[in-house]
Amino acid sequence: LSKVIAFVFPQGKGGNKHFQSDKPEGFLQAERTLNFHLLPKTVKRRVYALKRLQLQSANIEAKFYEEVHELERKYAGLYQPNFDKRRDIVAGAVEPTDEECEWQSDREEEELAEDLQKKAALEEKQADSAGADDPRGVPEFWLTIFKRVDMLAEMLQEHDEPILKHLQDITVKFSEPGQPMSFTLEFYFEPNSYFSNTVLTKVYKMKSEPDAEDPFSFEGPEIIDCEGCKIDWHKGKDVTVRIVKKKQKHKGRGTVRTVTKEVPQESFFNFFNPEKGKRKCDLDFTLTTDFEIGHFFRERVIPRAVLYFTGEALEDDESVRLLSCVIQDLDDEGEEEDEGDFDPTVSI
Amino acid sequence: LSKVIAFVFPQGKGGNKHFQSDKPEGFLQAERTLNFHLLPKTVKRRVYALKRLQLQSANIEAKFYEEVHELERKYAGLYQPNFDKRRDIVAGAVEPTDEECEWQSDREEEELAEDLQKKAALEEKQADSAGADDPRGVPEFWLTIFKRVDMLAEMLQEHDEPILKHLQDITVKFSEPGQPMSFTLEFYFEPNSYFSNTVLTKVYKMKSEPDAEDPFSFEGPEIIDCEGCKIDWHKGKDVTVRIVKKKQKHKGRGTVRTVTKEVPQESFFNFFNPEKGKRKCDLDFTLTTDFEIGHFFRERVIPRAVLYFTGEALEDDESVRLLSCVIQDLDDEGEEEDEGDFDPTVSI
Repeated sequence: LSKVIAFVFPQGKGGNKHFQSDKPEGFLQAERTLNFHLLPKTVKRRVYALKRLQLQSANIEAKFYEEVHELERKYAGLYQPNFDKRRDIVAGAVEPTDEECEWQSDREEEELAEDLQKKAALEEKQADSAGADDPRGVPEFWLTIFKRVDMLAEMLQEHDEPILKHLQDITVKFSEPGQPMSFTLEFYFEPNSYFSNTVLTKVYKMKSEPDAEDPFSFEGPEIIDCEGCKIDWHKGKDVTVRIVKKKQKHKGRGTVRTVTKEVPQESFFNFFNPEKGKRKCDLDFTLTTDFEIGHFFRERVIPRAVLYFTGEALEDDESVRLLSCVIQDLDDEGEEEDEGDFDPTVSI
Repeated sequence: LSKVIAFVFPQGKGGNKHFQSDKPEGFLQAERTLNFHLLPKTVKRRVYALKRLQLQSANIEAKFYEEVHELERKYAGLYQPNFDKRRDIVAGAVEPTDEECEWQSDREEEELAEDLQKKAALEEKQADSAGADDPRGVPEFWLTIFKRVDMLAEMLQEHDEPILKHLQDITVKFSEPGQPMSFTLEFYFEPNSYFSNTVLTKVYKMKSEPDAEDPFSFEGPEIIDCEGCKIDWHKGKDVTVRIVKKKQKHKGRGTVRTVTKEVPQESFFNFFNPEKGKRKCDLDFTLTTDFEIGHFFRERVIPRAVLYFTGEALEDDESVRLLSCVIQDLDDEGEEEDEGDFDPTVSI
């Protein structure tokens, strides 16, 4: 059950089992028509009047959702100072005071983890001495979240990771009153060698009124479209394509030449592909998944990022995967680590 | 996805798979503690600062939901004229004008139902001549809805039906600003021989602030309690009990006497039982189901009653059950009907 459930996904209005049949339309209509025709005419007439009233209610409901959207816009402004502080702490631009860092650890949590803590203390000493520089802010904050969350990890490729280390912040902006209802995700990157954009954006457009042809299926605002942005990749840095070399033999002369060709490859950065209809890569996500991802960023990741970073907001299977990897690494603790960083998500 | 601010039910915050693990707490905490302790101390400190910010966000979020509740209260006032008209049309207190009854039938709907319509026309002639009196309003409007909707049909017993024929209206009232957040369902009955109350009520109380001990599990207002009302049954009319006769033999004298005893029985009217903790009848619904039912009345039945009456808002299994019964009755159409009313829901 999401926060302000103003979203309905186009394919299948699932979730609430107490509405919306998806039986073959003819079947349903036959049955309804029959039941209807068995009513006396005078009663049928009154039921039609009730349906007209229902139509009026649906239109009032649309206004209700517009006002909820306004409320969301207002509160986005109220959350913003916290999100700005988060961005500054994560970047290391601001150092929180001791008072701002006070947090009561769960006593039970500490007791249960005693054994692990002993092992961890050993690792920590090694890590501390290995990284004598105090790391700035919270390194790889957003990349860590991507790795921990299934829906995001599925989009993440190995070649995306070095780029996402430069991701500083993700925000959501709401459409203004009078504009068609929409929200925009903004991904802010520090200067990097991959592309020149400072921010990558994706707009999600919504329908917030009942469909004139099917007014009673209206369940609130619905994402109906989305649009990414153009990424200005530096030469040779575009991770959404890879170079394929082909040898071609000239039919007449028999000479051989090498032709290079760009072919699409899987990458998180296909998320911003403005040509959304034409999927560049067969394994790119569908439009439905795209809407779900947009919704998820807006409703969960952006508001609760730290809880995904710590793992508190994760679901079962993700936690299981993490823990099994962590335990394995602990057992291997005698061996030398290849990477300097501890990578909690070993791909299975 | 329900209308606004989903309700979170105490047992298991299901629905959104992207949050809240329900793994054994110790397991989770061990893992989290481990990952946490592997971070350098300076970074950990900043993450605690982010968690404090998250706590502030949770408190801002609580105010957001209060404002949404106010919006719901405001719109309840805007829907009310339509609901009042509905009540008056259903009761036959007001006759809608021809203009108010204009409704474009779906052409496809009519084509598909041609065969059925011919049969229905025959039945209709018979029904019209049989019921020469023009029935008032929409008879058994709410009882029909109860029968059509699984969640309600499960609560409905045969002995409840004659009483529910007197149900005129179901409304929802919202708590006022400053009061603890709650909503009240009101069931209005016309004068009847069963009980003297004109309205039966059930209050659903909600928690709308983060739990101090677990602030990050806050997902919006949550039903935490409910309370029914006392029904003033007329003598011998209480359908929530039945009389059991027992013969008792006097140990000493050997005389036999008959003792009558009231034992609880299943009835929809147990829904109003103010002693909610003590379930009078083993087969009564659990507290969780009670919350779901309250939520369902508020979010679906009351706002969209006519669509449940016509069947447009029903789910697959209900429509299938209905249609199979309807077809069976059509095949039997040579036989004489026992009841004057056509009962579309034959209990299986």
